[in-house]
Amino acid sequence: MSAIGIDVGGTKTAAAVVDESGAVRRHVRVATPLDPDGALDAMAAAVAELDAPELPVGVGVAGFVGLDGSTVLMAPNLGWCEEPLGLRLAARLGVPVHVENDANVAAWAEARFGAGVGRASVVCVTVGTGVGGGLVLDGRLQRGGFGCAGEVGHLPVVPDGLPCGCGQRGCLEQYASGTALVRAARRLLDSSAPGTAALRAACAGRPEDLHGPAITDLARRGDPAARALLAELGDWLSVGLAVLTAVLDPECFVIGGGVADAGDELLGPVRDGLRRRLPAGGARPGAEVVAARLGNDAGMIGAADLARIAEGAA
Amino acid sequence: MSAIGIDVGGTKTAAAVVDESGAVRRHVRVATPLDPDGALDAMAAAVAELDAPELPVGVGVAGFVGLDGSTVLMAPNLGWCEEPLGLRLAARLGVPVHVENDANVAAWAEARFGAGVGRASVVCVTVGTGVGGGLVLDGRLQRGGFGCAGEVGHLPVVPDGLPCGCGQRGCLEQYASGTALVRAARRLLDSSAPGTAALRAACAGRPEDLHGPAITDLARRGDPAARALLAELGDWLSVGLAVLTAVLDPECFVIGGGVADAGDELLGPVRDGLRRRLPAGGARPGAEVVAARLGNDAGMIGAADLARIAEGAA
Repeated sequence: MSAIGIDVGGTKTAAAVVDESGAVRRHVRVATPLDPDGALDAMAAAVAELDAPELPVGVGVAGFVGLDGSTVLMAPNLGWCEEPLGLRLAARLGVPVHVENDANVAAWAEARFGAGVGRASVVCVTVGTGVGGGLVLDGRLQRGGFGCAGEVGHLPVVPDGLPCGCGQRGCLEQYASGTALVRAARRLLDSSAPGTAALRAACAGRPEDLHGPAITDLARRGDPAARALLAELGDWLSVGLAVLTAVLDPECFVIGGGVADAGDELLGPVRDGLRRRLPAGGARPGAEVVAARLGNDAGMIGAADLARIAEGAA
Repeated sequence: MSAIGIDVGGTKTAAAVVDESGAVRRHVRVATPLDPDGALDAMAAAVAELDAPELPVGVGVAGFVGLDGSTVLMAPNLGWCEEPLGLRLAARLGVPVHVENDANVAAWAEARFGAGVGRASVVCVTVGTGVGGGLVLDGRLQRGGFGCAGEVGHLPVVPDGLPCGCGQRGCLEQYASGTALVRAARRLLDSSAPGTAALRAACAGRPEDLHGPAITDLARRGDPAARALLAELGDWLSVGLAVLTAVLDPECFVIGGGVADAGDELLGPVRDGLRRRLPAGGARPGAEVVAARLGNDAGMIGAADLARIAEGAA
């Protein structure tokens, strides 16, 4: 049985019909209005356009989602708070709706159909504007006691470190996100460090115009300064993965998000750093570190699959 | 149906008949020989003494245990390596034997019958000579991909911090264990800090004779220096609990082990520290922090219950 998966991002909402093998069948994309009512209209319109009125619907949202599978407790980038999204959308569409955190749906998709297939315990880390995470342990998605498990971006890694939007200091996301990458690159350009000609050219000499994709692209083409920036980010990421290993001992880390487009320029330093930082390193097997496979579709695929399973159609 | 639980410690091996409500029925204790053959003899003798020849047997061992529920991969304090304990003991006794890490069996016992009853996600942290941990998420014991989940003592908390036996630096166990407590107390006595009269008296003026129970006992009786030492340890422990919260978001932390005998002298500072360190502190519920309830019996109770469940008699 197929299901519909919706991925509600800060600017775009994507929706698709996804079959039980995780394949995307039909696909639409609309702008995300920032008020919940507008977003609900947009989701309903997207579902109508898919023309599959009987299918259950899964929604992935960037924010804290309650364990009821309906309530968005807080979605800072969308400006939502205590929004009964699932109930409202179900009433509107006349089908069951299951709401989940966006990092969780992506992790579920990668574990079921992507880079984590065949592994019982998979931790997905998404490195984009921020750093997100999702845990699939023993073949089950872990939501935590209050729906907040897998907040990998808020692992404390530097005592009294950089301030974070979560109210703490020294969170991993301040050192290992796309935002941190761009900040480090701009700092490099503001300095008089040599070897930055390619980075300077990529932003026409205006550091404030430099963005993540330009840096990962240069790194893939072998630019030493861009490679060093990715290596530094990868090393920070390995600090977080060492923590996750001590706690969870997963078989496999799946690294996704925009920054992961840098491929082995990022994953190589992550693997090296994790090997060095593993507790009892020589005496235990370590997790594999692999790139995510489903790209931007992961959210829709995971949301659809969880909706299908919630309906007992697994 | 009852089962037999065995707790193999570095010096003593305890065994008991445990019923399906987690109650200890009969109980024996013998010395632990340090060679595996001797330990096997001791376990078999203890089981014979319990006179319940048909019951399945569960064993909790301080060490890394393979996911097969039989092999002790490495037990540093016992000097065992790649020891097929479960298979050998089963052949000897003629009943099924299930082997598990000691922190895991204790966590399972507290989650099923102790301080974590009624919670779906419970993280147990044992503060003794070292710091151990066990995870019961969604009502299931989490062993990790390679049997090494819940290594709470080896969470990295201080970059380039104190060296640890695991080969890394700055592990939580170097700051929040009974060993760290005694080290801090001796350092205090070696200094000329005021207010240490009671601590000095507790070791007859010989800092090298000061041990953990004397410090926790003084703290419970209100000695300011001992209370400050426990508060410092509790604050470090909260650093680890903040990490565990970001990853797992449990409903409940259960704190056990010898140092936890200090009760609220330890747990108060742990709760305060965790509240301060919670990511997005104001916007989310936090886990409760409670004292373990089953004391030294937790290992036997958990091992027996897991053996019972492994036999499908849940």
